[in-house]
Order: sequence, then structure tokens, then C-alpha cells
Amino acid sequence: MVSNSFDQQSSIAPRAQQVVTIHDVAREAGVTIGTVSKALNGQGKLRPETRERVRAAAARLGFRPNEHAQNLMRGRSFTVGLITTDSYGRFSIPLMLGIEDTLGPAQISVFLCDARDDPAREQQHIESLLAKRVDGIIVTGRRIDPRPPIDIGNAGIPVLYAYTQTTDSGALCLLPDDEQGGRIAIEHLLRLGRRHIAHITGPLRFESVRLREKGMRTVLAEYGLPYVEQRVFSGPWQERWGYEAVSLLLERKTPFDAIFCGSDQLARGVADALRERGVRVPDDVALVGFDNWEIIAAATRPPLTTVDMNMHTLGQLAGERLLAMMNGEREMGVRRIPCSLVIRDSCGARLQGEGAGERVS
Amino acid sequence: MVSNSFDQQSSIAPRAQQVVTIHDVAREAGVTIGTVSKALNGQGKLRPETRERVRAAAARLGFRPNEHAQNLMRGRSFTVGLITTDSYGRFSIPLMLGIEDTLGPAQISVFLCDARDDPAREQQHIESLLAKRVDGIIVTGRRIDPRPPIDIGNAGIPVLYAYTQTTDSGALCLLPDDEQGGRIAIEHLLRLGRRHIAHITGPLRFESVRLREKGMRTVLAEYGLPYVEQRVFSGPWQERWGYEAVSLLLERKTPFDAIFCGSDQLARGVADALRERGVRVPDDVALVGFDNWEIIAAATRPPLTTVDMNMHTLGQLAGERLLAMMNGEREMGVRRIPCSLVIRDSCGARLQGEGAGERVS
Repeated sequence: MVSNSFDQQSSIAPRAQQVVTIHDVAREAGVTIGTVSKALNGQGKLRPETRERVRAAAARLGFRPNEHAQNLMRGRSFTVGLITTDSYGRFSIPLMLGIEDTLGPAQISVFLCDARDDPAREQQHIESLLAKRVDGIIVTGRRIDPRPPIDIGNAGIPVLYAYTQTTDSGALCLLPDDEQGGRIAIEHLLRLGRRHIAHITGPLRFESVRLREKGMRTVLAEYGLPYVEQRVFSGPWQERWGYEAVSLLLERKTPFDAIFCGSDQLARGVADALRERGVRVPDDVALVGFDNWEIIAAATRPPLTTVDMNMHTLGQLAGERLLAMMNGEREMGVRRIPCSLVIRDSCGARLQGEGAGERVS
Repeated sequence: MVSNSFDQQSSIAPRAQQVVTIHDVAREAGVTIGTVSKALNGQGKLRPETRERVRAAAARLGFRPNEHAQNLMRGRSFTVGLITTDSYGRFSIPLMLGIEDTLGPAQISVFLCDARDDPAREQQHIESLLAKRVDGIIVTGRRIDPRPPIDIGNAGIPVLYAYTQTTDSGALCLLPDDEQGGRIAIEHLLRLGRRHIAHITGPLRFESVRLREKGMRTVLAEYGLPYVEQRVFSGPWQERWGYEAVSLLLERKTPFDAIFCGSDQLARGVADALRERGVRVPDDVALVGFDNWEIIAAATRPPLTTVDMNMHTLGQLAGERLLAMMNGEREMGVRRIPCSLVIRDSCGARLQGEGAGERVS
């Protein structure tokens, strides 16, 4: 199949400055372009004088062998596609920076494509990446679990999923360790002497919500403390829900001295609602969020202690695994990357002299 | 110069599924790869039987001519680089989506590269994009005005600046019309009957801050109203500054019935501070932000009426102009794209029956 994109594009041809191509060098040296490539790459059998003639021609014309030409010969593009549905870039940009940190030294660039939650657009992006002969694809996006696998036909390139999960059990999925994230939040609160911990979180259809809650349950059980259902509230991923849930929590008349929130946005709504009711954070109630979304966590009054999913590390690992797969290694299943705790003011650790802004893994 | 990246990469060679290359077809048909390309592209002089032999060989091997091969012959990669310094993706993702909307139908993909405010890393990205023979580069990033131009050597590809400005007067810079953005905010407040408008904004070293203020001054003058310096406060781009500036404003004891803020984050701090002092928004004081950053603007109590810089439209225009430049058109100077006003609850228009969520350009 010859892509007809070129017909559409044929009008966009002349450039201000003409690029010297491998064809020009071939013409100048009186050889085929195959010979030019062999000569300039130092590959294949070639008489020394031919090699020299080509090199001289290339130098005369100012030819700069480009990756295009070289990759063509190797069937590689030295690019990797990153497909996302996260239009704000909240999670995909830190992920991309991590991927870049791993692939950059291997001279591989990352194409970020936004599918905008539209399967047709996603497929279009995939086709375009395949046509560009990317060396691999990393799929990320919102964590509405689990998503169908992407369809790359018989392209035979490695694909992995990062911060999203697929129904294809043969695929490799890299995810934050949400259960461990829940654990470290609760352990931290218990170490600070809190015993009556409420939980305000997102919709239960999210596996991340269920796993964070599971982490909470496990730690409480280890400490011989009850998990009090009346102090647990699940609702939409919106700041407003955090704000409203505080009223529901107060109505229950179950005592609480800490709240673990499923996101920083929820925690921010909670902090505002508590302050307006004269409840002091952290003196009366300690607060821990989830995400370490700087723009929200640092602006909350008081600034939020929160669980960081280490998206950058997740991205680095995604890059590493993709390189391994490009190298023929087989990878499958779900791998979880540990979260860290970032300590600010809302948990009270600073009041007790523990380090601020310090990460606890 | 032959990039030595390939030496590093030579270990990553065998793939699960071997891709059929133009070389395989050439071998199969007993011709050079130049002949294969001519045959499959229908270009150049070739005997019909040679063309047919190549086509048959390609079909037999299941060869899928790829863009790599084709672009090599045209000196084009059908990719465009987007260099940013905006690590949160706050502005660059909407910009990228706009660019994609224009370039997508032309089968051109966008490479997003994050320079992370590091000139050395930026230059590395540029070299990598040039080695990949991108068809053009769009530079964006934080608006610390104006930045030095990027150095693409003698690559001869079009470059433009979007949402950032360069010191190179020969370059094309696409920017939001900050002055007009200031105008529409103030005109809206005046139409709602407000007459004593305060302004809480970012650092004066930003041209955007000065232009928005200029828009405010101009409209006030047109209405025969004074510009009261005591009601204008410039400080850091932080929510906390918005919160603190309210105390300063109240101390001045200059009456005010509206506040125009230089960003939504500032406006959010202002809204919290006013509420805590029992000042009602919009009843006592109308509030207008800038950015229409959904995550902040919609979560503010009450939700913010705010100026939208139309980053998506800016991206579309950047894509259009880059295409024109690829087509040989010359573009230079600064072009400004109009802002819109997004009406929510904080200005009081809804109380007066004006459309909510409606855009006013």
C-alpha cells in the first residue's frame, strides 16, 4: 500500500534552502545510493577508492547523512510513540519526561499523541505511528480500568501500558502501587498518634480507589484497629465532593482525628470545609492527600502532605522495559511501582519535629 | 558526520518479526533500491517491465512501502517539532492539540519535546529534531519575554514561536492579545455596572501583565473613569499572593466593587480571602480571572468568570502558518490572537440574567 498522503502533500515541495540528499551524492560520485550508504556507514564490501570517492563527493556537496537514510537501512526510526488521553498533561507530561530520560541517551525521541478519549482518533494516531515505523509504543491515559488493547496489526513492534491497564493479559502494564500508597499514608498517620481515620475518596469503580482502601484496611488490621465504614465516603473526583463530604462526615457523629483523601483535589475541598467549620488542620484533624499535584497540594491551606505516585520513575521504567522488548526480551503482566510520601504541613509531622518536604518511600 | 548513536544501538537489532525492507525488494527483483523507489512511487524513467518486476517482487514479499523510505526520497519526514518549557503541560497540551488539528489532515505528526528550562537540553532536542529531518519547528514555553531565537544552523526549515516571543525581529511570533483580553474583562465589569475596579496581577516584568493593565486603562479612559493606582497590586504568580493582596487592598480603604485578576490562581486566592472576611462575591465584589484554567476556575467558590486565551486556536494558527512557510511563504513579526470571556458566577452576570458559560469574544 502506497500511502496517498503524499498526493495531498505534493503541493508543499520547494524549500527556501535545498537539502543535499543521498541522491545528489550518488550522482556526484557516479554510484548508486546503496553504494553511498555503504561508503558513509563503513558497511558492506566496497573498494577503498570507491569509498573514498563517495566520501569526497559527500564532503564537496556538504552532505549531512541523516537518520532517515540510516534508519531506513536498519528498519528503525529511533522514535517511540506515547499515546495518551490525558488532555491536561497532568500525568502524561511527567511520564513522558521519565521516558525521555531513559530513551534520550539511546538517541530515541518520543512522539506524544493525544487520543482525546476518541477510539477513532486513537486508531488514526496508531496508523500514523506505524507508518513512521516507530520502534515501539507506550500507551497511557486516564485510569478507567482496564482498557482494550491497541491494535497494531502485524507491525511486530513492542507495546506496553503505563499508568493504564489493558484487558490483554499478555501485555505488560506498569502501574503505581496504589495499595502500598494507601499503606504509607495510614502508617504515617498512625505513627503520628492518630487512631480514628476517615477516608474520602473517588468512585469505587476505579481499581485505584479499591486498592488504596485495601492498603488502609490492611494497616489498620495490623495495628489491631477497626475499619469504620461510617467514616468512609466515595464520590466523584471533584474538589466539590471533598468539600461536601465533610458535612456528611460531621453528621455521622463518629469521632475522627485524621482524614486520608483519595486525591489532592478532594483533600483541598476537605481542608476548606474543615477551616470554615473552625476545625483546625492538623491540630484537630490531620490530613493526607494523594497525587502530590504541586499546584493543588502546595496551595492548600495548610499545604498538603500527600502520596506521590512517582510518575517520572514510572516513565523511566517504561522506557527501560521498552528498550528490553526492542532487544527481544519478552515482558508481560502487571508491575507495580512504589509510591512515596511527601510531607508538608497538613499531617502535623512538622509540629512533632519530623522533616518537612521529605520523602518517605 | 555519521552519528555514532548507531554504534550504541547496534545491540538492539533482532526483532520478533522481521520487517521487509526496500533492500529485500531490490534483491528479489535484481535491481537497485533507487529503481525500487522509482517503480513503487511511479516516478522517474523506467521500462514498464522493470516497474512490473519490482511491483511483483514487492507483492510477493509483502513489502509495505513506508514513509521513511518515501520521505527519504523527498527530503521530508512529515513531522514537526514542538519545543516547550512548560513542564505541567498547562499551555502546551492545548496548543499541541490545535497544531495537530491543522497538521493531522496533512498527515504531519507533532513531536513534543520538553526543554525543562535548560538551554543545553533544548539544543540537544533541536539537534535530534534536525537529525530526524523535521519539516519545521514550533517553539513555545513560559512567557518570560522575549527569549533568544533557537539555533538550527543552516537546516533551512521554517521555525515559528507560539505563546512565546523572541528577540529575533525576523521571526514569526503568535501571541494571545493580552491587551484585548484586559479590555473585554473590564468592559464586561463596566457593563454590569461596576465602577471601582481593583487589579491584582503578576510581576510587571511580564509583557502580558503590562498589556492586560494597558487594556484596563484604555477602557476606563473610554468610559471617563479614573485608573486608581492604589487599587493595583503586582506580585508573584501564586495563589497565596492573591490571598494576601486582599489584605493590602482593604488596608488602602479605597472603595472597590470589582477585582480583575491577572490569573485564575490569583483570583482563587482573592475569592478565598474575600469569603473569609465576609465580603460576598459577586454581590459585594465582582471577580474576573484570566486563563480559564478549568481545574482552578471551576473549583473556585463561586466559579470564576475568566478570560480564555484560546490556546487551541493559537495552535491551529501556528499549524497553518507553518504549513504556509513550508510552502515557501515568508512570515515575520508579531501576530496577536483575540481572547474570549467565559462567564461563570463570580462576575454577577448570571444574577442579571446574562448567559452563563457563554463566550464573549
